[in-house]
Amino acid sequence: MQFHDSGYVSGDPRVQPAAGPARPVELPDRVDALIVGAGPAGMAAFAQLSQFPQVSTRLIERRPGRLEIGQADGLQARSIESFQAFGFAQRLVEEAYRIYSMAFWRPSPQEPTHIVRTGLVPDDPSGISEFPHLILNQARVLDYFAEFAAHSPGRAAPDYGVEFLGLEVTGDADHPVRVDVRHRTGPRQGERHSIRAKYVVGCDGARSRVREAIGRRLVGQDALHAWGVMDVLAETDFPDFRTKCAIQSHDGGNILLIPREGGYLTRFYVDLGEVPENGDHDVRSTSLETIVARAGRILHPYSLDVRDVPWWSVYEVGHRLTDRFDDVYERGREPRVFIAGDACHTHSAKAGQGMNVSIQDGWNIAWKLGLVLDGRARKSLLGTYSAERQVVAQNLITFDQEWSSLMATPAQNLPGPTYLEDFYVRTFEFPAGFMTRYEPSMLIAEPVYQSLAPGFPIGKRFRSAWVHRVSDTTPVQLGHHARADGRWRIYVFAGPHGEVGEPEKLGHQASFDLKVIYQQPFGEVDLRRVPAVFRPRGGPFRLTDWEKVHATGPEHDIFAEREISRDGAVVVVRPDQYVAHVLPLTAHDELRHFFDGIFL
Amino acid sequence: MQFHDSGYVSGDPRVQPAAGPARPVELPDRVDALIVGAGPAGMAAFAQLSQFPQVSTRLIERRPGRLEIGQADGLQARSIESFQAFGFAQRLVEEAYRIYSMAFWRPSPQEPTHIVRTGLVPDDPSGISEFPHLILNQARVLDYFAEFAAHSPGRAAPDYGVEFLGLEVTGDADHPVRVDVRHRTGPRQGERHSIRAKYVVGCDGARSRVREAIGRRLVGQDALHAWGVMDVLAETDFPDFRTKCAIQSHDGGNILLIPREGGYLTRFYVDLGEVPENGDHDVRSTSLETIVARAGRILHPYSLDVRDVPWWSVYEVGHRLTDRFDDVYERGREPRVFIAGDACHTHSAKAGQGMNVSIQDGWNIAWKLGLVLDGRARKSLLGTYSAERQVVAQNLITFDQEWSSLMATPAQNLPGPTYLEDFYVRTFEFPAGFMTRYEPSMLIAEPVYQSLAPGFPIGKRFRSAWVHRVSDTTPVQLGHHARADGRWRIYVFAGPHGEVGEPEKLGHQASFDLKVIYQQPFGEVDLRRVPAVFRPRGGPFRLTDWEKVHATGPEHDIFAEREISRDGAVVVVRPDQYVAHVLPLTAHDELRHFFDGIFL
Ligand SMILES: Cc1cc2nc3c(=O)[nH]c(=O)nc-3n(C[C@H](O)[C@H](O)[C@H](O)COP(=O)(O)OP(=O)(O)OC[C@H]3O[C@@H](n4cnc5c(N)ncnc54)[C@H](O)[C@@H]3O)c2cc1C
Ligand SMILES: Cc1cc2nc3c(=O)[nH]c(=O)nc-3n(C[C@H](O)[C@H](O)[C@H](O)COP(=O)(O)OP(=O)(O)OC[C@H]3O[C@@H](n4cnc5c(N)ncnc54)[C@H](O)[C@@H]3O)c2cc1C
Repeated sequence: MQFHDSGYVSGDPRVQPAAGPARPVELPDRVDALIVGAGPAGMAAFAQLSQFPQVSTRLIERRPGRLEIGQADGLQARSIESFQAFGFAQRLVEEAYRIYSMAFWRPSPQEPTHIVRTGLVPDDPSGISEFPHLILNQARVLDYFAEFAAHSPGRAAPDYGVEFLGLEVTGDADHPVRVDVRHRTGPRQGERHSIRAKYVVGCDGARSRVREAIGRRLVGQDALHAWGVMDVLAETDFPDFRTKCAIQSHDGGNILLIPREGGYLTRFYVDLGEVPENGDHDVRSTSLETIVARAGRILHPYSLDVRDVPWWSVYEVGHRLTDRFDDVYERGREPRVFIAGDACHTHSAKAGQGMNVSIQDGWNIAWKLGLVLDGRARKSLLGTYSAERQVVAQNLITFDQEWSSLMATPAQNLPGPTYLEDFYVRTFEFPAGFMTRYEPSMLIAEPVYQSLAPGFPIGKRFRSAWVHRVSDTTPVQLGHHARADGRWRIYVFAGPHGEVGEPEKLGHQASFDLKVIYQQPFGEVDLRRVPAVFRPRGGPFRLTDWEKVHATGPEHDIFAEREISRDGAVVVVRPDQYVAHVLPLTAHDELRHFFDGIFL
Repeated sequence: MQFHDSGYVSGDPRVQPAAGPARPVELPDRVDALIVGAGPAGMAAFAQLSQFPQVSTRLIERRPGRLEIGQADGLQARSIESFQAFGFAQRLVEEAYRIYSMAFWRPSPQEPTHIVRTGLVPDDPSGISEFPHLILNQARVLDYFAEFAAHSPGRAAPDYGVEFLGLEVTGDADHPVRVDVRHRTGPRQGERHSIRAKYVVGCDGARSRVREAIGRRLVGQDALHAWGVMDVLAETDFPDFRTKCAIQSHDGGNILLIPREGGYLTRFYVDLGEVPENGDHDVRSTSLETIVARAGRILHPYSLDVRDVPWWSVYEVGHRLTDRFDDVYERGREPRVFIAGDACHTHSAKAGQGMNVSIQDGWNIAWKLGLVLDGRARKSLLGTYSAERQVVAQNLITFDQEWSSLMATPAQNLPGPTYLEDFYVRTFEFPAGFMTRYEPSMLIAEPVYQSLAPGFPIGKRFRSAWVHRVSDTTPVQLGHHARADGRWRIYVFAGPHGEVGEPEKLGHQASFDLKVIYQQPFGEVDLRRVPAVFRPRGGPFRLTDWEKVHATGPEHDIFAEREISRDGAVVVVRPDQYVAHVLPLTAHDELRHFFDGIFL
């Protein structure tokens, strides 16, 4: 965290100084970006855009206020890495349940009506991230995003109680999207009116009306899978009640049991089987008693005494996807309306993807919109949103199908006794959120020089590592300095004699955050010899920023850990933490060319 | 963090459910405990007492509102451990400057008018704590305590703008202390009135009027040491500007340079020499320009271009101490008024003790008052406050004197060229806050069985270590489960076959938090065989608490790390994290006897 550079800040430095035009209390008639829906996708997008105070952004949400309880709860390490950029990873880690192990229970071969534990595997055997895999109510995740937005320069707050009715993309050159809304609460209750927006992001969930308005359709299998989901306070003699478990009983019934934050609450996903998409939805009338009874039977011989059920629902979900995530039907037309999260893809509840992938959608579109709307980047950036995220969703569905059908397969039909456990361990990168690898595009370079830094695969998320900050010798996670401020990061890994190329020639400085990492131990780096571009001066007092120069240390050698060439390399990272480029130190022209394709 | 046990909590679980009688908005005429002064001592005491909702506590502070800037900034690891119990360690770590190294600069032997770096030592070479040594404005530390108090069951908030005028201990059996106050701000401005309190804690700083009222005197050397203290935003080519430095120049001038939170701000302690206690205080009129100029000269040949000075003061301080920290003059009388922090001891600024030791004072008296006032513990507890803390302050002064005189000794007069650096490293436990070792008393047992757990020295703070929680296999810091809730912790380290003695016979359960740690790896512990006392049920739903059973794991063996006997041991820890007792598993009678001496 850097602060006090414009003078002393009394109070919490997490509350950034307000900037940009003051935010009107009333929903204005014209906005740059309008987000529909305050779920994970919408709140992530909103939080990111709140960092662009020159861009007027509003978020409308039908609910009268914050989400109070329920829905998704699985948070992949990839999400926690993202939260780190939004400044709330640590607090969320403290509050959440941490998945450290996963247990597998199956019918005892001797006594099939009794379940027995067949495996206990570490959840993240490879240490794929410096952050853990967590479980926390979606409501709290949204709270944290809301807090970040409120503390951002734009002092953003969602407009609750406002319903999206429909939209039309008009010929208006400046604010082409006309959005019709209705106020459901507050002094304007019942009132309808129109808002004109430059861009609209529909994050309005699986029954998205924004999606409908742009004529996209969720398509997928014919059948949905139904789950009885309940958050319970219960007593049991089941010993793994506080460990994440996949439990299969002898008659095919199965449960995913997920301990929850706070040490007492537990979530049961009780499998209710396949239901036809256009059937009678009989399953929706499944009672809580039925679900509890079914859970009790599956847990046999262990007892289950449910004492309170703060939340439950019957959740029918199938793998569904739209063909594009925007309103572009002809090549070359520029998108004006985007859809994100459940509005464009839904997943089986089993892999716990919903909230996570939606957050990445929202973040992806938002930084692009931010850079375009504040006039720094080319509009063509916006086309990459659908291209990047639709593929991710498709891949997830492929994986989910495999996982879900495995989970539903009776034990005796699986290829081997530990097949399920092995599959889980083998494919851990996927559910943890790290298999996303964006294809080359205007934002992702061809991996021509990938061999200079194999530990930073182009198109994948930048995996942080320890370095020492030279100015104070302190070990820091290199990636954690980057915040969700819409800037790109350029990491210059210096050559054997401190060569750094000529980064000062890059241009577009306001959009970059440039750092250097020397391969020498920190004690051998003389700060006074470090090129001035890594010691920039700023703010009203023209003060030096001392936090951009790093080195290795006795315990931490990022060059070794991330296989960076000792000849040096430049690693370019996007505002959403994905590696965009790896180049030699001397490839200035190529790098400039890459950025000229993005920035104006 | 444990929550949801009484039903689902929507919103931040750090905000505890309100309990006890509602807090009157107006300062009431009668209170159980009255704290004077919202510095570190007062706020720590207040935060602790806010966890006793049945005890009515108020804090009066002369200032019209929160401290905005200035004063102490050094936070020892011992303080961060304490903050962990108050739930804000992590956030504070994120916000603060971390001292990782300390640099020493002295006149170049070749060219004495130039300073050169003579050493760079790790600040905590031995890893004395799981928490780091930090620098953060006192104002922010007070903010965090205030937030904790506001979120406590008592929903406590300081009464700002109220000045303590004097007190008298009367014959009133119930509320013997009459305190006279005056309102300096707000609707009652100018009004004087009296408050009757059961106990008063004077945390009103070095010029304490509470101290005066009870007739104690700060005594010490004849001379004070004067420092020009300034927080600056500056430009310099001094390469260690972001590392903590002790700098001595050829003419005896010296600086302690302390980088501050946020990456830009820096504090200079510029030595202004000794001044007589009852002199003309001429030094107080030293101008900022003089201090800046002196700092610039000492830094020669490096430049210093000060661009902004958000805070500065001339701080005269000497080693001063009162003979007792309460109002007891005759043996056997019971104390009614206590003094804490600078009110009873002041220290050289060099060792950065002021804020830290004051926090420990405040915490020490507050949990004792809490237990006595809510009727659980004997009043004789209160006598231990002065006995424990006066000795600590005396020891600190002895150490400070040695350190300060060393710092002031010209390089050529020191025993050897690296004497200063060596002394710093050798005595690190002291300034880090870990040398406190309370003597045997009703609260600290004689170390008869210390050999059962040499890693938990009786009288010293309980040093946390990693264990695995059996119910979910997750590694946790054993000590971090303990919060500043006024409860004692009893850690039962089980014997070779899981023997645990008979802890259920202890009594006083409401005041205890009982945990077991098995020496077996977590996979070998069968939760169903663990004695019920370690799986207590509570709350409206009578739910099992799953977080009290621990074990070792492949990476963490607390038995080895803390040298715990394989025969098992019981370790008793006080509410303020100090080890009170170590006993064999079978010593029930002794343990009960120990507690019978404390609890009613
Ligand atoms: C009832 C339910 C139960 C679920 N249970 C689970 C679960 O157990 N496990 C799991 O992993 N996932 C679950 N999910 C899915 C998970 O919550 C989603 O994947 C995730 O929330 C997707 O985020 P999102 O932002 O795309 O959409 P959502 O979180 O659905 O958010 C959409 C938002 O848009 C708002 N909105 C909708 N229409 C309008 C409109 N016309 N105007 C204004 N606002 C509108 C909604 O009120 C909502 O706040 C559940 C979802 C639902 C709805
Ligand atoms: C000006 C100044 C500069 C300092 N600089 C440094 C430094 O550079 N480095 C360092 O390590 N330490 C410094 N200290 C010391 C450090 O701040 C103290 O050691 C530490 O704050 C002690 O905490 P405390 O709670 O005992 O007292 P304090 O922090 O002094 O708090 C006492 C509180 O009591 C209030 N009070 C006083 N009288 C009354 C009354 N009659 N009625 C109601 N309220 C009253 C005061 O307003 C104050 O808020 C400085 C102290 C001061 C005053």
